[in-house]
Amino acid sequence: MAKGTVVQKIIEAHYVSGSRETGKPVAIRIDQTLTQDATGTMAYLELEAMQIPAVKTELSVSYVDHNMMQNGPENRNDHVYLQSVANAKGVRFSPPGNGICHQVHLERFGVPGKTLIGSDSHTPTGGGIGMLAIGAGGLDVALAMAGKPFRIPYPKVIGVKLTNKLGPWCAAKDVILHLLSILTTKGNVGSIVEYFGPGVASLTVPQRATITNMGAELGVTTSVFPSDESTRKFLKAQQREADYVPLAADAGAEYDQVIEIDLAKVVPLAACPSSPDNIKPIEALAGTKVGQVIIGSCTNSSYRDLAMVAMTLKGRKVNPNLTLAIAPGSRQVLEMLSRNGMLADIIGAGARILETGCGPCIGQGQSPADDTVTVRTFNRNFAGRTGTKGDQSYLVSPETAVAVALTGEFTDPRKLGVEYPDVVEPEVFGINDSMIQLPTGTGEIVRKRTIGQPPVNTPLPDEIDGVVVIKVGDKITTDHIMPAGVHLKLRSNIPAYSKVVFECFTEPGWPSFAERAAAVRDSGKAGVIVGRDSYGQGSSREHAAICPMYLGVKVVAALAIERIHSANLINFGILPLMFENPADYDAIDEKDELRFTDLHKQLAVGAPVRAELVKENGQTQEIIFKHRLSDEDIRIILAGGMLNLK
Amino acid sequence: MAKGTVVQKIIEAHYVSGSRETGKPVAIRIDQTLTQDATGTMAYLELEAMQIPAVKTELSVSYVDHNMMQNGPENRNDHVYLQSVANAKGVRFSPPGNGICHQVHLERFGVPGKTLIGSDSHTPTGGGIGMLAIGAGGLDVALAMAGKPFRIPYPKVIGVKLTNKLGPWCAAKDVILHLLSILTTKGNVGSIVEYFGPGVASLTVPQRATITNMGAELGVTTSVFPSDESTRKFLKAQQREADYVPLAADAGAEYDQVIEIDLAKVVPLAACPSSPDNIKPIEALAGTKVGQVIIGSCTNSSYRDLAMVAMTLKGRKVNPNLTLAIAPGSRQVLEMLSRNGMLADIIGAGARILETGCGPCIGQGQSPADDTVTVRTFNRNFAGRTGTKGDQSYLVSPETAVAVALTGEFTDPRKLGVEYPDVVEPEVFGINDSMIQLPTGTGEIVRKRTIGQPPVNTPLPDEIDGVVVIKVGDKITTDHIMPAGVHLKLRSNIPAYSKVVFECFTEPGWPSFAERAAAVRDSGKAGVIVGRDSYGQGSSREHAAICPMYLGVKVVAALAIERIHSANLINFGILPLMFENPADYDAIDEKDELRFTDLHKQLAVGAPVRAELVKENGQTQEIIFKHRLSDEDIRIILAGGMLNLK
Repeated sequence: MAKGTVVQKIIEAHYVSGSRETGKPVAIRIDQTLTQDATGTMAYLELEAMQIPAVKTELSVSYVDHNMMQNGPENRNDHVYLQSVANAKGVRFSPPGNGICHQVHLERFGVPGKTLIGSDSHTPTGGGIGMLAIGAGGLDVALAMAGKPFRIPYPKVIGVKLTNKLGPWCAAKDVILHLLSILTTKGNVGSIVEYFGPGVASLTVPQRATITNMGAELGVTTSVFPSDESTRKFLKAQQREADYVPLAADAGAEYDQVIEIDLAKVVPLAACPSSPDNIKPIEALAGTKVGQVIIGSCTNSSYRDLAMVAMTLKGRKVNPNLTLAIAPGSRQVLEMLSRNGMLADIIGAGARILETGCGPCIGQGQSPADDTVTVRTFNRNFAGRTGTKGDQSYLVSPETAVAVALTGEFTDPRKLGVEYPDVVEPEVFGINDSMIQLPTGTGEIVRKRTIGQPPVNTPLPDEIDGVVVIKVGDKITTDHIMPAGVHLKLRSNIPAYSKVVFECFTEPGWPSFAERAAAVRDSGKAGVIVGRDSYGQGSSREHAAICPMYLGVKVVAALAIERIHSANLINFGILPLMFENPADYDAIDEKDELRFTDLHKQLAVGAPVRAELVKENGQTQEIIFKHRLSDEDIRIILAGGMLNLK
Repeated sequence: MAKGTVVQKIIEAHYVSGSRETGKPVAIRIDQTLTQDATGTMAYLELEAMQIPAVKTELSVSYVDHNMMQNGPENRNDHVYLQSVANAKGVRFSPPGNGICHQVHLERFGVPGKTLIGSDSHTPTGGGIGMLAIGAGGLDVALAMAGKPFRIPYPKVIGVKLTNKLGPWCAAKDVILHLLSILTTKGNVGSIVEYFGPGVASLTVPQRATITNMGAELGVTTSVFPSDESTRKFLKAQQREADYVPLAADAGAEYDQVIEIDLAKVVPLAACPSSPDNIKPIEALAGTKVGQVIIGSCTNSSYRDLAMVAMTLKGRKVNPNLTLAIAPGSRQVLEMLSRNGMLADIIGAGARILETGCGPCIGQGQSPADDTVTVRTFNRNFAGRTGTKGDQSYLVSPETAVAVALTGEFTDPRKLGVEYPDVVEPEVFGINDSMIQLPTGTGEIVRKRTIGQPPVNTPLPDEIDGVVVIKVGDKITTDHIMPAGVHLKLRSNIPAYSKVVFECFTEPGWPSFAERAAAVRDSGKAGVIVGRDSYGQGSSREHAAICPMYLGVKVVAALAIERIHSANLINFGILPLMFENPADYDAIDEKDELRFTDLHKQLAVGAPVRAELVKENGQTQEIIFKHRLSDEDIRIILAGGMLNLK
């Protein structure tokens, strides 16, 4: 157990119950919650089911930032529901156009030392201001709003010691890309990254937030920075100096692991297709033609990021062989840039100005042409996430992105021949919270026809006659399980959204996963999903549990299952199991049967779980599964999910 | 024939051949063309088929403004093709983000007295600057680029005499809405509206362009204003004073019909669901709750429009029960507003800023919630065009729209209690043409996998055994025939796009139009579409001819067929016929057969065309059709369309 760390201090200050032994569950009090619209509708429907008159957190905010395209009535029906339920339940409402949840929350609501859970995997952005900010499934956020503590595995703390400071054109984004090259996206489940050392002071809060935001790609529980003079300055500029509290690790704090990064040696990097940990220096890519550049997302759309872009573009022209699109992260930033002329410089250079929101980062528009390199300042480049199959998506800093936009090819920004802009952080940000609706605690909740009820699972049977409906490989993300893009608007309609589970693996002319799973369910058997390593990484969408559950899936078996997805499976009554013997993964094929007997007892004794594999040809063998389930987890699964426990 | 009119003068100056008798075809020389991306890919594929090395017009511009969402690679594949073919063929290219074709063309390229055809039905916007600007199918635009003259029926000229000037909060939009209440959308085929009288001088070029733009909804060939001191001032502010030529009707000019509008008596109006001619005063709607307001489109996004909106919003707040979205019409306007702080005032009031382009006007995003009133400054409110079935879409001026945005309900802006902003038109607009690509006349044409070839029809048989695949009612728009919205991205892929012909009439579980038409075609018979009044109104999309043609349709029979659609049918070898006896419309049902014999001779002699109707029960009767086909039209149809004539 890490001692004297910021992580330990925040957990202690919020400790409710549980273990202080690394890996064992600890329950902590949650001060703040946030939701976004794509996961939020389900979360508030679940909150409604709990019949709590008003949320019990210090602060809860409902943001609309994902589904803002509105192709058909579904998105706006969701917004109307979210606005009305927020008003009724004591939740602040940030409407479409006000900004991306993480950016706005950092600017207007983040408080050092507080705990925050959000139904979005990039909630760790709040770690930049010294919060313990954790992504979770919608149901866990609903429970936190209802006043329940949140359980995490007591973390292994990875200390990242920063020394020196970044050179010109080298960015916070390059720091996290560098760390991803070390830690990769696998094997960090249950850890929290804590930054310390003399280099911390050189980074502003928005820079730190870029680092903690994309820390989500490490697969860790969250990342956190200390709260210091930079933090005070940021809060003061946001006219919230009263929210400042200092927070630092004790001298001689003990970390479970320490990684040192010399900021002066960090160079411009890119995450190459199609994983955030496939890192190369920009220099190695130099000269490759690029067809599209997009700057924005919750990772990189702070005032500093966009001001640097504006100052670099001023008086220059975007290369005509590509398009540059800018998606400002918050109304605050957009309004400031439009007041000080920087937006005009961006427009004048030929950039396309997209609506303030998540937009292309979650596949809402701006899909690139076929056979085209796209360069983005986002945090994820999973295959197909751009909306174009076979996409070639690279993740970079805004510094690199603007250099590419000017030259039309990969260009190390240090070799652009332009002086690095000296961005002056504002003494006072342009504060304008007038769009944020303060709840009245009363008023009708408006449910238009596309707002469905969350489905409820059946209790876990003692015997499961399972059939493997799908077997997938490594690093299957929740994007693979539940596609976003044009399907994202179905979030409030489980039967419709369930039709596209694992759509990326559907071959034209063959039965879809949904059809195969439904056939298994209708035959009286249970669906089984077999995954390999890092199953369920990426987004926090609980639909990746709800929709398979709706289709009759009872077991997910993999080599490793990511934290948030595992929690979502438990919450909806699906059993997450891990192969004791990795070779067993190879032994299993689609359509094989996996039979569990005496399952309640097997789970009760806490031992490995055993099943009998029956191959199509009748051969059988025993498969042994391990799991990390706590007693509480088992109680939830046996009940068929959390919604059956009320 | 109208004498001494502006219309007559421009036609005479461009006369090539044909008649000067009203209603008979006259061929005129075309100076300029424009295309947009949704119709443009097909137009340039057709131009390529003509094997012309470079366009022969004075100026041709290819704009990207429709398909800018990019959900999937199709849209951007189109852009890349359009950019490359423009470069190769001597066409200027205006990339996505540079603005809506009509707005940009007016600002940067419009010249009084010139002729312009464009593959977009709102090309008459150019009439605001004294051009004869006409919407046409893509193939007609391609032919004009190849140097061929363009044929129109020699027009009946409707003179609209304007007197006095508009009162505060009463707008150019209200003038055209008022005219729509008089002339309606029906019965004006073959006419051109010409504005004259002392009231003209009080209107700026952008105001005039609003009027001629939405004049398209009258179903006329185009609308035109004189070129005068206002025109010179606008061109000077665009740094194009050298393009100015004065142009006015002679004293004592004779119009075929005269309508007088006292501008001082024009009040704020709305086109109510679901037709642009369903006009009511805003006063009559006052108090009705509104859920969405959108300001923009080629009708209403001039500097003056958006500056007025910004000045009204400044220091105020958008009503929290609706969303206000602003879609700036051109980069020029957006950049100016972002330089002078007005954009900041719009953002500060809580508006959502959408990308510069057509956007929601063509169903690309911003679909309203179910059961919600949406108020838009656009030109069309056909049922379902918003992307939400059963939509309640009202068309108003920006003045009314901003009043509604502040109050949350229909509000006569004169009763808003706000002083009407005194917008100062800029002495010099912010000129920035750097995004517009000048063609080199060389370079590879890039055709990615989603760019298909235009299909070619077979010659018209002498005997047609037709089957009525669909029978529809009045005012069927090209939106009904070929849906836009999420399907618009299929524009370059005829087999895929053809699957959604008449999708709005498809009942779940029943065969689609495409399936029924293909079955008729595959049985060796020909498809027949039966329409009623104003069949094919709205957009110029030639896909409303190409896709039915692809599915085997050979005849469209209706009470009346709109001009552009009729020309598109002819261009693709479909016979457009009109019932001599309106009662025969009632006699025909779906699945009935319509047998034409000796058709070539029937067409050659120019008499009415006769067919035998065979009902499902075996009963027969003769149906007599009239038509307006010229000899040239017949030659094209017999050949199976224009593409077979090369």
